[in-house]
Amino acid sequence: MSPQSPLEGVLVPLLTPFGDDLRPDPVRFIALARHLMGQGLGLAPFGTTSEGNSLSVDEKIALLDALVEAGLDPARMMPGTGACALSDTVRLSAHAVRLGCGGVLMLPPFYYKTVCDEGLFRAFATAIEGIGDPRLRVYLYHFPRQSQIPLSLALIRRLVAAFPGIVVGAKDSSGEFANMEAMATGIPGFKVFAGTERLILPMMRAGGAGCISANANINGAAMLELWHRWREPEAEALQAELESFRSVMEGMPLIAALKAILARRLGDDGWRRVRPPLVELSTEVDAVVHRRLTEILE
Amino acid sequence: MSPQSPLEGVLVPLLTPFGDDLRPDPVRFIALARHLMGQGLGLAPFGTTSEGNSLSVDEKIALLDALVEAGLDPARMMPGTGACALSDTVRLSAHAVRLGCGGVLMLPPFYYKTVCDEGLFRAFATAIEGIGDPRLRVYLYHFPRQSQIPLSLALIRRLVAAFPGIVVGAKDSSGEFANMEAMATGIPGFKVFAGTERLILPMMRAGGAGCISANANINGAAMLELWHRWREPEAEALQAELESFRSVMEGMPLIAALKAILARRLGDDGWRRVRPPLVELSTEVDAVVHRRLTEILE
Repeated sequence: MSPQSPLEGVLVPLLTPFGDDLRPDPVRFIALARHLMGQGLGLAPFGTTSEGNSLSVDEKIALLDALVEAGLDPARMMPGTGACALSDTVRLSAHAVRLGCGGVLMLPPFYYKTVCDEGLFRAFATAIEGIGDPRLRVYLYHFPRQSQIPLSLALIRRLVAAFPGIVVGAKDSSGEFANMEAMATGIPGFKVFAGTERLILPMMRAGGAGCISANANINGAAMLELWHRWREPEAEALQAELESFRSVMEGMPLIAALKAILARRLGDDGWRRVRPPLVELSTEVDAVVHRRLTEILE
Repeated sequence: MSPQSPLEGVLVPLLTPFGDDLRPDPVRFIALARHLMGQGLGLAPFGTTSEGNSLSVDEKIALLDALVEAGLDPARMMPGTGACALSDTVRLSAHAVRLGCGGVLMLPPFYYKTVCDEGLFRAFATAIEGIGDPRLRVYLYHFPRQSQIPLSLALIRRLVAAFPGIVVGAKDSSGEFANMEAMATGIPGFKVFAGTERLILPMMRAGGAGCISANANINGAAMLELWHRWREPEAEALQAELESFRSVMEGMPLIAALKAILARRLGDDGWRRVRPPLVELSTEVDAVVHRRLTEILE
């Protein structure tokens, strides 16, 4: 990995552990982050998988501080900072930049559902100007199914043109490869991360930067191997292997299922906790996940 | 209005003014609030119309403090406090209760889109327990089109049963009268506010508490007149009159249009400002709104 691009590769939208009072637990959080970074993965805390929008800005700042104080490299971190309130987006993003984070992953404001591109442009532009730091690197977070706010290619081009060197990339969780390809090949220097490991190989062939996927919390090392070896003859087989793990998660409530797998792996049921409105896996569903996982590992 | 029920009647989801730096402007905010309360209206600040989710918790606390410090009666206020992060909901709600607010209007967490009733129950229950104040009065905010998170009747009944005297009512912005009627007639003592003035009369006939409507920022006095006189022969005519104003807003971006009308009325273009992702009215659309309004006033 070149020092010029510490954020390329596979980034993990880090699961967030909670204590029995449902407060974020920095001790478990640091331990998971250290383990994953030790495998060569970057971190994208406070994403959708991280229950990032279920945390207050103060909680996110405290967790990010904890990671950096634990000696983990902020240049390899891209925290999610986009909130409904611009003031929240600005405060968290500015803090991340001050800590030395390599970038921030920015959702658009997502409460109002029928907004025009001009309004979205102003939302990002006002946030960037409010942060007011030349070290800022913004990755736009396109996740229409969850946020209900698609980011059009025209909007993205306009933002890149208005903020060159600041708006530098995107995470695309639409699942639509044509859209990822259009960004990666059509916008010079733009760094595109596929939101699913299903598309690592096509993404890299299209000049993408890598992948940010929920499953990287559990299966990140295998994704990173493909990312390193995508030009080799084995790449197709490595891509196919990633499908086994994906099939375990099919039809499952993703965040609760990932936490359940981690809880079993670490022998720590505390990892099962989620913040409402999510609920942890039922005993029955947990057994299904465990059986599927055991089958693919045999 | 009986002193036992200071929150019945017509409540205004107060528009939020911004300075040219897009920070909330407490001076304009207090002036509008004072004017509307002087007409006998209650206040529901930080609702959808208020761009409430475009404000940070700190900004909402500062604005609420400003209203109370200005001598306005908090017992007649029902601020919107429901956020994606439970910690935000708890902090703002607890502050509102300490200030003496008559109730809080609570959206469910709205980032995760496919959540079960059990998860939503836990979200409200955890918030209520976290606030931990017997003076708390929660009004559930049902606005499926905007939040994408419908609150089922079964969920509402369960919350009322679990928190009697705390979960006391709802605002229903679904537009579906059958749902409002089912709550008002089927849950003893439950206070239901229609989210549109179109339904004040049927709502009151079904035993409802009143109305919380965006247009009350401009046309609240006429709504309140109907609320006071709903048993009189003139009620049908008063209800029909409210339609004139509603027709002005048809097809308009509601928040920007209301701010534009207020700006003209007060001769203060500063009122036109909205926070991104919203945009203010274009000159052309502003002219249409003004023409329509002039026509109905002639």
